[in-house]
Amino acid sequence: MKEKTSGAHPVDLDTVKITGGFWSRFQDLVRTQVIPYQWEALNDRIEGAAPSHCMENFKVASGQKEGTFGGCVFQDSDFAKWIEAVGYSLTIHPDPELEKTADEAIDLVCSAQQPDGYLNTYYIINGLEDRFTNLAHNHELYCLGHLMEGAIAYYQATGKDKLLNAVRRYADLVDSLFGAEEGKLQGYPGHEIIEMALVKLADVTGEERYLRLAKYFIDQRGQEPNYFREEIEKSGKPWGWAKSPFGLQYYQAGKPVREQTAAEGHAVRAVYLYSGMADVARKTGDESLWNACRTLWDSIVRRRMYVTGSIGSAHYGESFTFDYDLPNDSVYGETCAAIGLVFFARRMLETEAKGEYADVMEQALYNGVISGMSLDGRSFFYVNPLEVLPEASEKDHDRSHVKVQRQKWFGCACCPPNLARLVSSLGMYMYGTGTLDGGEVLYHHLYADGRASFTLGSKRAEIRTETRYPWDGTIKTLFSLPEGSASFTYALRIPGWCDRYTLTVNGQPLEYRFSDGYAYISRTFQDGDAVTLELEMSPRLISASPEVRDDIGKVCVCRGPVVYCLEQEDNGAKLHKVRISGNTSFREAWEPETLGGIVSLECTGTSLDKPSQFAGALYQRYTPPVYKPQVLRWIPYYAWANRSAGEMTVWVRVQD
Amino acid sequence: MKEKTSGAHPVDLDTVKITGGFWSRFQDLVRTQVIPYQWEALNDRIEGAAPSHCMENFKVASGQKEGTFGGCVFQDSDFAKWIEAVGYSLTIHPDPELEKTADEAIDLVCSAQQPDGYLNTYYIINGLEDRFTNLAHNHELYCLGHLMEGAIAYYQATGKDKLLNAVRRYADLVDSLFGAEEGKLQGYPGHEIIEMALVKLADVTGEERYLRLAKYFIDQRGQEPNYFREEIEKSGKPWGWAKSPFGLQYYQAGKPVREQTAAEGHAVRAVYLYSGMADVARKTGDESLWNACRTLWDSIVRRRMYVTGSIGSAHYGESFTFDYDLPNDSVYGETCAAIGLVFFARRMLETEAKGEYADVMEQALYNGVISGMSLDGRSFFYVNPLEVLPEASEKDHDRSHVKVQRQKWFGCACCPPNLARLVSSLGMYMYGTGTLDGGEVLYHHLYADGRASFTLGSKRAEIRTETRYPWDGTIKTLFSLPEGSASFTYALRIPGWCDRYTLTVNGQPLEYRFSDGYAYISRTFQDGDAVTLELEMSPRLISASPEVRDDIGKVCVCRGPVVYCLEQEDNGAKLHKVRISGNTSFREAWEPETLGGIVSLECTGTSLDKPSQFAGALYQRYTPPVYKPQVLRWIPYYAWANRSAGEMTVWVRVQD
Repeated sequence: MKEKTSGAHPVDLDTVKITGGFWSRFQDLVRTQVIPYQWEALNDRIEGAAPSHCMENFKVASGQKEGTFGGCVFQDSDFAKWIEAVGYSLTIHPDPELEKTADEAIDLVCSAQQPDGYLNTYYIINGLEDRFTNLAHNHELYCLGHLMEGAIAYYQATGKDKLLNAVRRYADLVDSLFGAEEGKLQGYPGHEIIEMALVKLADVTGEERYLRLAKYFIDQRGQEPNYFREEIEKSGKPWGWAKSPFGLQYYQAGKPVREQTAAEGHAVRAVYLYSGMADVARKTGDESLWNACRTLWDSIVRRRMYVTGSIGSAHYGESFTFDYDLPNDSVYGETCAAIGLVFFARRMLETEAKGEYADVMEQALYNGVISGMSLDGRSFFYVNPLEVLPEASEKDHDRSHVKVQRQKWFGCACCPPNLARLVSSLGMYMYGTGTLDGGEVLYHHLYADGRASFTLGSKRAEIRTETRYPWDGTIKTLFSLPEGSASFTYALRIPGWCDRYTLTVNGQPLEYRFSDGYAYISRTFQDGDAVTLELEMSPRLISASPEVRDDIGKVCVCRGPVVYCLEQEDNGAKLHKVRISGNTSFREAWEPETLGGIVSLECTGTSLDKPSQFAGALYQRYTPPVYKPQVLRWIPYYAWANRSAGEMTVWVRVQD
Repeated sequence: MKEKTSGAHPVDLDTVKITGGFWSRFQDLVRTQVIPYQWEALNDRIEGAAPSHCMENFKVASGQKEGTFGGCVFQDSDFAKWIEAVGYSLTIHPDPELEKTADEAIDLVCSAQQPDGYLNTYYIINGLEDRFTNLAHNHELYCLGHLMEGAIAYYQATGKDKLLNAVRRYADLVDSLFGAEEGKLQGYPGHEIIEMALVKLADVTGEERYLRLAKYFIDQRGQEPNYFREEIEKSGKPWGWAKSPFGLQYYQAGKPVREQTAAEGHAVRAVYLYSGMADVARKTGDESLWNACRTLWDSIVRRRMYVTGSIGSAHYGESFTFDYDLPNDSVYGETCAAIGLVFFARRMLETEAKGEYADVMEQALYNGVISGMSLDGRSFFYVNPLEVLPEASEKDHDRSHVKVQRQKWFGCACCPPNLARLVSSLGMYMYGTGTLDGGEVLYHHLYADGRASFTLGSKRAEIRTETRYPWDGTIKTLFSLPEGSASFTYALRIPGWCDRYTLTVNGQPLEYRFSDGYAYISRTFQDGDAVTLELEMSPRLISASPEVRDDIGKVCVCRGPVVYCLEQEDNGAKLHKVRISGNTSFREAWEPETLGGIVSLECTGTSLDKPSQFAGALYQRYTPPVYKPQVLRWIPYYAWANRSAGEMTVWVRVQD
């Protein structure tokens, strides 16, 4: 197997430290609020909340306690996501007490492991004879995938390999049971994630068989005779989503993955699969698999993605629907799906250093991902709408999934811990390393105030980035080269949304090559060199493709990577009556005390006056409408629903 | 009890005959297609369709056959609706063979009646001990209500009273079991209709106790302690919709009817109830009940009705949602609900001769009612959308109830027979009689080519109406007065949509008084007098109130009472890209061979060109859009989906 080399490989989390600004605030929230709260939740210590049963299940499974299995069939994954977030958090912010708690939790989890390596409390408690008989619906391999990711993160943070060894034993068991060989199970997970986890495990352990197993799961998926169809028919178990209009494509298992040309079915599963496909394609140099990834990528970002980076437009099946079907008010846009899109984007970047991938990664991160968490880190959205009418959420069943305020915690708590693990590990998404004409390239994908250390051109390099991004477009990167100088290429991402920028070294213009979204500066850097990128950040109006029915005649407002919205709190109700001109100008203001610190925008729009002929009437002969001026105040979309509950909209009508 | 007298009382069906034109065609369809087809369906003789079990149930219930109950719990009502349509059809078009079939059917139905008068096959077959124990959900009183209406129609058509006597005995049983008195059931129907049926029965039989029972059902509804809540709690039966967010208002039973200020819950049930309320208010002179009717009327027509007269915007619960929530593409708009609105409107007219009631009656009839039937009378819509995208119906669960083509017949076949009974009895909606200053008034609500005979000013009057309405605005009414002359008031409705009209007698201007939507001509009419009303019919653009989010920035096109639409067949796909100017002019053409004969409209609009910056991109910086001219061809909304399956829209964007 030959590895492709033109991409940007992520760097280790411990080499990057976000020290201030936008993301630092979110990382602190995760560390001080989400992780401790989640631990209490896993242990059923949240007053008023339905018990999670998660740690309890491990006690029952290990024989420390009598009892039955509680919670969802995939409840184990809650621990796995927590330990992964803990691993990342300890990497960027050591905390001996948290580490002690985690060690004890790992002891408990490992004590439930069976002699053959099996470790899933649902089947340990309910009967091992049924294990691996309901791959389509019982999330066994999904839980293992999460456990792998958690074990790896914890191992990399602490060097402690107890959990890692446990999941290796479990992975080895799975490897011995699944595969093309006679007598093995020719199956694959109903909810993907194990594919990308296995690739990580192969990297960490150096064991190629884990990569082969990932490849097997991907290659086998959707082949005929269809494993899920046979499994369900044989078992007599309910068909579940397999009998919905999605059919087996709900699980992305209706046809072989290389024949899948549109993002279909459950959105989180889809992007988790595609992430694994991108990993395996890169690791194995599999062109046909890589082409499938590119096709599916295009399907999402060119036809099935909200401007906030949210995906999965339908509540039913938490799923994709069809091209350009992007309703703003009945959207699902699960937080986890946007997170999965970030996973997929980074993996595409690993094979091909193309700005579009990093653009989408950033688009999702600043909008549809962090909109999932309140500014105090204590409440969460599953669903991330682009338009909200409280009365509709309350009175229309088809929009009742759209919540007007974030919820404390969920019975099926997938989004909060998923946010925790992504935000804590964000350092791994900011840089990449690659090669160009035999030399080394340091890719700088995402900009945040912080430090990083690399070895570049065989020399040690300390990098310090100073920026108020995304509020300000100036990004200054200082190179400390203890050995004096180093020759390498520094590739800065020029965001696709940016039309004008300047790039200087030590205040002077410099030579660079722009290619596919990156400015490549190839030179011998001197200790103390400062590269300054200035991105023009003025607010801009954005249209959707005219194929998007729900956005036609409308625009949204963006500034840098941040999508803005109108809230009732600032603008009153009846936001659908608002209209802005296509050449509206905006006043920008840095408001450190508002919503955790934001740049707010203000413009003068208009609002439809109620014409006199409508006094009491619902339909009347058309007369040209009368609009009255209205000052509109915009806030970043991610910050909505942190004050009073009310209307919100991202898209507004444009006068053209 | 004192009867209010200022309204327009409906006339008997046998006094009015539609002889040609628009409605004649629909009446012929019902007679030649729907009624015979339905009879086959009731007898399980439709190949490929799920059996109805309806007549079979009567055979089993009467002991003529062994078997179990089949179909829905309200399957008996299918016979009741059929016999009602048959009654009306025989009135306007005698048919000895059909009458013979009906007589035999009545013999069978009556043979299932129990000694105490009870007649509902579900409980006769499954156990009489459970009768009247699940009023909330088992439609027993609903079936009886329909049976009353059927029996009355058949009696009035043929003079045969076998079925009428049977339902009287059943009604007497119900009257003995329900009521405020100690030991009686203080209940009421879960699905209303019996209220208006009882008022009819009181009229036909002269027995006031049926009116008192109707009043009891209405007055008792929603009182505390709540009957449904207690019934469900006592029985341990499922809560059904009572536990949905609608609560008991799903059945309009969450509070006393006089405290209900918004149309809520299941739309068909709601308008059936309101119809009965209007009947009882009129019959008893109950001001508070009449005020409740007016409040609920306003709630519907001023805030919760589509421009097509369709009501019930949500699929979930087939229900009303909230004010101004009128989505065009996910609408329910059940055919039966629009029919129920016609019932309600005519009853409001009976108390108060106000053009608004007749306007809405007409609006529903020409649009949301007959859109429910194909032009060949062989297929039917339950759901009447104002915007259709075939891909959404196929791939989006939340729009999967919106069918792109009418269906052959339904398992729960409520809409086709409901259409049959309304269309056959349309004569009863066209005229009304009332009094004014002690003299008689003949109200002419709806215009159709036809004849009618009345006694006016104590003299016999034969009326002949000549019109091509709704295609042409000229309505000529000729009075034949065998006794030479007669003094009375002839009140012609001037539709609310009409801004300009002329009114002449024998070609000369005449004196009249315009009040509340009617032109009152008070004079001594001479034999041979011809009153000609000319309504200006040019196409007009209509806006919805700006409170309607889904129609903002849009207009629809109407001509006379007919709402128009764009279909893909005529205009290509991507109808959301179309825009018209606020001063668009239309070319009108009578096309006798198209869609059963229509006036089509044509105008020049524009369509959004795909801007070049969107090549492959989903979101881009806003630039003013480029529109190219496009000729748009409009057809009447009711005639949509009679050619190829494709997109359709009623509302289009307007450039203003």
